[in-house]
Amino acid sequence: MAHFIDIWVNCPDRETAGRIADACVSDRLAACANILAPITSRYRWKGAIETAKEVPLLLKTRAEHFNAVCKAVRKLHPYEVPAITATEITHADQAYADWLRSETKEPA
Amino acid sequence: MAHFIDIWVNCPDRETAGRIADACVSDRLAACANILAPITSRYRWKGAIETAKEVPLLLKTRAEHFNAVCKAVRKLHPYEVPAITATEITHADQAYADWLRSETKEPA
Amino acid sequence: MAHFIDIWVNCPDRETAGRIADACVSDRLAACANILAPITSRYRWKGAIETAKEVPLLLKTRAEHFNAVCKAVRKLHPYEVPAITATEITHADQAYADWLRSETKEPA
Repeated sequence: MAHFIDIWVNCPDRETAGRIADACVSDRLAACANILAPITSRYRWKGAIETAKEVPLLLKTRAEHFNAVCKAVRKLHPYEVPAITATEITHADQAYADWLRSETKEPA
Repeated sequence: MAHFIDIWVNCPDRETAGRIADACVSDRLAACANILAPITSRYRWKGAIETAKEVPLLLKTRAEHFNAVCKAVRKLHPYEVPAITATEITHADQAYADWLRSETKEPA
Repeated sequence: MAHFIDIWVNCPDRETAGRIADACVSDRLAACANILAPITSRYRWKGAIETAKEVPLLLKTRAEHFNAVCKAVRKLHPYEVPAITATEITHADQAYADWLRSETKEPA
């Protein structure tokens, strides 16, 4: 199976998540984007523990596109250090895997 | 540790997610099912970028049951190509791993 | 890339999720914690299929801290067998990976 990943990006709001989703899907950097329900985040930033409302965005794509997606996210995300991580899709229904491949661009 | 996975299925609504959850848990194809809050999905389908409300379903099971879960999902899911993917559970609290094993059927 | 993981803990309510989040972030066992929207869980417990409202908690940390996080969760979680699993973060934006490392304690 080609190498697919789930890329998770925590966004400050739905609008930012929507802009990143549209940019990545229309550029075929991701086959699909899911904007999840809001979350409450706790994290340490410059010595203090902060609380923030965030919106998770999940992008499904080929592993080769991770860096290009990071670049696209950084262009549209207001944070100094946006949370962009990915986990490997180790199993996929065959028809869905074929669709993921057909809807993402070939690696350069 | 036996090989466990998180299977993610995007469903059109809570009812479909509930039916799939019940079928997989009662058949011991999954130890547990979580129906998450609704999401907004953006994806390309037959050339156009579509937006849809979906409901994610998360099933925890043994990796050996992935294909059987795909089969069960396709029976109950209305989409032509349902999104069924999985990521590997690389770490699990021992007592929970034992429970996951005890609540899923032995591979054939 | 140092070895980072996403640890998922299903909690009975937001208060329990909040207590675990605060304990792990303040002890630098996790760099950040996300409390997700409530979920509906279906699972088999002592022979019967149960339904419960739960709240997922996601903790990002170094893989070496998994057992210490399990210990911290068990101290604060009311279940006999709390669901504590993790998936490997296979890709991370470099600046974010550096931040994850800087906000989690060095392994003992």
